[in-house]
Amino acid sequence: MSNKIPYRFYLSEDQMPKAWYNLRADMPEQPDPLLNPATHQPIKTEDLYPIFCEKLAQQETDSTTPYFEIPEPVREMYRIYRPSPLIRAYNLEKALDTPAKIYYKFEGNNTSGSHKLNSAIAQAYYAKEQGLTSLTTETGAGQWGTALSEACSYFGIPLTVFMVKVSYQQKPYRKAVMQTFDANVIPSPSDTTEVGRKILAENPNTTGSLGCAISEAVEKAVTTPGCRYVLGSVLNQVLLHQSVIGLECETAMNILGEYPDIVIGCAGGGSNLGGLIAPFMRDKLKGKHNPRIIAVEPASCPSFTRGRYAYDFCDTGHVTPLARMYTLGSEFIPSANHAGGLRYHGMSPILSKLYHDGYMEAVAVEQTKVFEAATFFAKHETILPAPESSHAIRAAIDEAIRCRETGEAKTILFGLTGTGYFDMVAYSSYHDGKMTDYIPSDADLQKGFDKLPKVD
Amino acid sequence: MSNKIPYRFYLSEDQMPKAWYNLRADMPEQPDPLLNPATHQPIKTEDLYPIFCEKLAQQETDSTTPYFEIPEPVREMYRIYRPSPLIRAYNLEKALDTPAKIYYKFEGNNTSGSHKLNSAIAQAYYAKEQGLTSLTTETGAGQWGTALSEACSYFGIPLTVFMVKVSYQQKPYRKAVMQTFDANVIPSPSDTTEVGRKILAENPNTTGSLGCAISEAVEKAVTTPGCRYVLGSVLNQVLLHQSVIGLECETAMNILGEYPDIVIGCAGGGSNLGGLIAPFMRDKLKGKHNPRIIAVEPASCPSFTRGRYAYDFCDTGHVTPLARMYTLGSEFIPSANHAGGLRYHGMSPILSKLYHDGYMEAVAVEQTKVFEAATFFAKHETILPAPESSHAIRAAIDEAIRCRETGEAKTILFGLTGTGYFDMVAYSSYHDGKMTDYIPSDADLQKGFDKLPKVD
Repeated sequence: MSNKIPYRFYLSEDQMPKAWYNLRADMPEQPDPLLNPATHQPIKTEDLYPIFCEKLAQQETDSTTPYFEIPEPVREMYRIYRPSPLIRAYNLEKALDTPAKIYYKFEGNNTSGSHKLNSAIAQAYYAKEQGLTSLTTETGAGQWGTALSEACSYFGIPLTVFMVKVSYQQKPYRKAVMQTFDANVIPSPSDTTEVGRKILAENPNTTGSLGCAISEAVEKAVTTPGCRYVLGSVLNQVLLHQSVIGLECETAMNILGEYPDIVIGCAGGGSNLGGLIAPFMRDKLKGKHNPRIIAVEPASCPSFTRGRYAYDFCDTGHVTPLARMYTLGSEFIPSANHAGGLRYHGMSPILSKLYHDGYMEAVAVEQTKVFEAATFFAKHETILPAPESSHAIRAAIDEAIRCRETGEAKTILFGLTGTGYFDMVAYSSYHDGKMTDYIPSDADLQKGFDKLPKVD
Repeated sequence: MSNKIPYRFYLSEDQMPKAWYNLRADMPEQPDPLLNPATHQPIKTEDLYPIFCEKLAQQETDSTTPYFEIPEPVREMYRIYRPSPLIRAYNLEKALDTPAKIYYKFEGNNTSGSHKLNSAIAQAYYAKEQGLTSLTTETGAGQWGTALSEACSYFGIPLTVFMVKVSYQQKPYRKAVMQTFDANVIPSPSDTTEVGRKILAENPNTTGSLGCAISEAVEKAVTTPGCRYVLGSVLNQVLLHQSVIGLECETAMNILGEYPDIVIGCAGGGSNLGGLIAPFMRDKLKGKHNPRIIAVEPASCPSFTRGRYAYDFCDTGHVTPLARMYTLGSEFIPSANHAGGLRYHGMSPILSKLYHDGYMEAVAVEQTKVFEAATFFAKHETILPAPESSHAIRAAIDEAIRCRETGEAKTILFGLTGTGYFDMVAYSSYHDGKMTDYIPSDADLQKGFDKLPKVD
């Protein structure tokens, strides 16, 4: 390698992580346990077996094992699309005239178009290993459904995806991608489940919701022999699998002789953010380094910056355990915000605890500012970013501009989680000047808080 | 590096090509020259200056210079998305149970979604260097228009894209991507040109054609001061720029200790095929190696396998010079074949000459067989291929199956030119069993041949 840091840096296969890192093992205080929604008693690992496959339930509740070996079949599939590049944003730096050094980890170079595949592969593999014969999940925007379809097709395990009906109708291409990978895609609500039939009877014209799709997917999983449910964010197991992102960053930056002063990730349920920051947060918790760690969320769905740290349901259908997290209330309906993947009322319990204890910062950004950053980034770095990812771009640009003003040559690392090819309706609305911002009022938020379950 | 060949192999920046390779310099016989359509006299370099910028016109007509240095600003933009990976298709090999070793060069990991960006950058750069103030082009499916929009935005040169009206209406997302990169996208035919107004007057409801869009783009270029026209395929200059694909393959395979026995590429106008095979064809012409080189085209538009080797127009609007090439006649209308990028009546004059002289093979494949291969490939290699690229996949799979039957461990290299995210209508039609094949009759083809220009 020449002295100059390359535009794109790829680890060799030998340098790829052989184990996932479990951040909980190094946290001074643990997140509060999941609770049974009826009894409010802590959930035991085996209580989760009817819903999740056993290995995943164990990963979900294990807060002491620091490293989990990545099974060889998972590493084999990772090698088809990983390592992902660590990119030095030379052109963005030049365009911003900043002394900051900007790096981003790009997770969009796979058919799912996002980082979601990292956990989908793990979850499909463990299900296959346990001898399960089918899986269910839900999908809204479609990236998670696509990723899981790819993984299930690869390991040969049938998958049913409950796709929110409005997305099913508006995004036929997403559906077609999942079908290419043999997934059975059902618009939700459907007449294939009890809960779906009930909702249809009450409201035949409903276009569905993520909460309803989750409820259908869970019902089908627990009522079908050999079937389990899988989820693409929020859960501890998902953050564990996504640590592959941060671990690759750490190795690559180490080889390049760099360490980030600031680590930035977008935050919906926390899957990308938790994976990206894992090794850097570890260094911070151990006092080895002191990077600033920044979560970026939409101003329209501000769980960190304006939510409550409280026990709540993970879904709107109230079929899941209670988790203590930053939440806007499980019945909070975000506005028609185009950054679909960040429209979630809650937040990963691990990240919530870290934020609550002061180890992370959070900022909320408005949609038009996000698309301004996305368009600027695309022109200079040639990658068309997903709206979700562009929240991190916005914050990275803002930090780089601050460096220009102060003259500090800080090293900024952000996560570019995916591409925006299926989000052009939102881009068009921005180009045409039709995009608006929405910030919920305190009264709007109070309605959500009022419905939080009462837990002593 | 471990002894095992990795799944994905990336060159370092230092190993990337510093010059493009001009295959013509090593051809024992040259392609016939372009002719003035009125006088039938050979075109001189300077005759092309009103249409193309000067450096590109020189590259177009230079058959003796073997290497053209890649200008540093072009290499700088290449480094944002190149080198592209050379992928060992371990999973496809396993699924096919073949002793063959299958490699593919994947050009889809950039926002244009295809290899088109390699030439777009060069053409935008030379235009900027000459001090031109705007460019025009046409686009059908939209990949070329997207690539050129990216390049023009990067170099700061305004671009007008005439987009075939039916695509403009059916693919609003493609249009939105181009607009993100500041391109002025006009549905063709339009009232902004003489030829467009004429066509609209005759047929107000026409949905346009590539031929019409070319005519509008050329008219606007030659009637606007400081403006030139650029094209994404067929031309010698485009094959020159695309040689970066083959040169990267050559270096990578050399490092891995491999050499292809068979090189396979899809063929529409020839941009990808000509670039991929360049160094391997050079070795063949020089007697150093003897790889089989196979062009794969749609059975619905079979210029190599059933066309005539004759002088013809490059466009349906008859505004271009005449080129001697394999052609179905410039008025040949391909059936509604979904592989948009391969629906071209002619073929690169360089490749036509090589095929005519027996250095290459060609096969024509039917659409349903192509999508069968595409779906099989996606499931095992996790990349969703473009329909165009999938023609090469079909032929590679067929060769690998032949190896299984004969027990030969041949090394197969094919070009995977792009991704299929914007082609899900075609995939859906395949999944739903609604896709049909179409093979033109001899009588259909004869109609095209009857209209070939008479050149002595």
